[in-house]
Amino acid sequence: MTWSRGSSLFHQARSKSSIAAYRSLSITAQTGRSEGQITSTKASSFEKSFDEGRHNQSAITSTDVSRRPFLIGVAGGSSSGKTTISERLVEIMGAEHLARVELDSYYADLGDLPLEERRLVNYDHPDAFDWPLLNDHIAALANGASVQIPVYDYVEHNRSDETRLVEPARVIVVDGILVFWDQALRDRFDLKIFVDTGADIRLIRRLRRDVAERGRTVESVIEQYLTTVKPAHERFIEPSKVHADVIIPAGGLNRPALEVLLARVREIALDDE
Amino acid sequence: MTWSRGSSLFHQARSKSSIAAYRSLSITAQTGRSEGQITSTKASSFEKSFDEGRHNQSAITSTDVSRRPFLIGVAGGSSSGKTTISERLVEIMGAEHLARVELDSYYADLGDLPLEERRLVNYDHPDAFDWPLLNDHIAALANGASVQIPVYDYVEHNRSDETRLVEPARVIVVDGILVFWDQALRDRFDLKIFVDTGADIRLIRRLRRDVAERGRTVESVIEQYLTTVKPAHERFIEPSKVHADVIIPAGGLNRPALEVLLARVREIALDDE
Repeated sequence: MTWSRGSSLFHQARSKSSIAAYRSLSITAQTGRSEGQITSTKASSFEKSFDEGRHNQSAITSTDVSRRPFLIGVAGGSSSGKTTISERLVEIMGAEHLARVELDSYYADLGDLPLEERRLVNYDHPDAFDWPLLNDHIAALANGASVQIPVYDYVEHNRSDETRLVEPARVIVVDGILVFWDQALRDRFDLKIFVDTGADIRLIRRLRRDVAERGRTVESVIEQYLTTVKPAHERFIEPSKVHADVIIPAGGLNRPALEVLLARVREIALDDE
Repeated sequence: MTWSRGSSLFHQARSKSSIAAYRSLSITAQTGRSEGQITSTKASSFEKSFDEGRHNQSAITSTDVSRRPFLIGVAGGSSSGKTTISERLVEIMGAEHLARVELDSYYADLGDLPLEERRLVNYDHPDAFDWPLLNDHIAALANGASVQIPVYDYVEHNRSDETRLVEPARVIVVDGILVFWDQALRDRFDLKIFVDTGADIRLIRRLRRDVAERGRTVESVIEQYLTTVKPAHERFIEPSKVHADVIIPAGGLNRPALEVLLARVREIALDDE
């Protein structure tokens, strides 16, 4: 199943009031300052949590780019090891230094669409994601605001009523198969990492996870892989590698690469302590 | 022109006494301790320069692996940007923290072979390098000894009588097209970087350098590229990418990647200060 851009269910979904509620947060957070910059003259309560713990700096100016969060995008194929890398970074750094945002949280809200139809959606296609909401949230975090990130319900194949609070931090990691696909999002990243794991290894991981842990049949996993995962990978994910600053082969198990990334994150997160 | 391994001029070259002289240095440096480790009970004058500037450590034990130098290999195609990256690391860190060893210094000594024949050698082939000498020197540096690195004479197409002193340092960078080719060398690296620049960009850099700066004709550069550079790249260099921990696309101009590498180098080099 292939979907063409701009003609999908997801555009309808974006007009829903539930999304408008999510967005109001970040729109408020952006009021009065240029995107991605924090100015001392425009300081507001939104910056409070962002600036807590910084004692050596008397004023934050708009030219002081080291004050704004450092944004890292981690892209790569499904089951490439992106999550392992991002989780390790959070685990080692702690949420006070590193905020993590997963693209998977931003599957579009399909609202009243029947479950049958929601099941047929290609979740590996760019149209499956709510890019405007994700961009708004990243802008808000970059501006020092906390955000309420949607929680996706994988059983219902829809956005749930729950949200998860993510506080701003010096380093923000955004990970997901297509985080280099949307140009507005891509342009925000100070560092773009692509986790490049071979298609066979990614398939093996998927088989193990879905068959052993989720009780699916080998044939159904292969069917899904061939009809949606592989085509989306080749059409959207693999070409986005061209945007990467750093490519990590064998993601997840690659300790030297994790150490390198971690050194950069540590340097940025801890430089004002 | 393609050469098969093990049947070249270079094997003769290795038995020469000039090479034996180079090696004696590092063999002495290794006496009495296991390779790559520094033990407090076996301390010798060779460790002196290595340990200078470390004031917080009263004893160095063999289990304290953080005491031994951190070895970084930087491989990649000809004109990929390896040198730019390595030079920037030295420039920023300083020679007291980072020692750089170039594979190009280890072109085999062809001794009495006539200049005509030396000109015909394929300098992109693994057999063009003196791997035993390079391995001995890296072992010596890793053990805290200084080494006298050969200086290659590109006009004479042979090793010159000069040498260049390289002092040991906390971080050692070894860069060159084939530094992942030799397994003994490869196994020494704590971090393996592959600079992955497209073949067209590498050819353009070579054309600009050799035509504009060295006065060669476009056709002669293309001829050399097609007969030696490209075949060696495809046969030996590109396959060695599989060993990389981190791949850097668009080497040389890739600042986010350089910053990431630098953070790791800084973390290691400056952690005892």
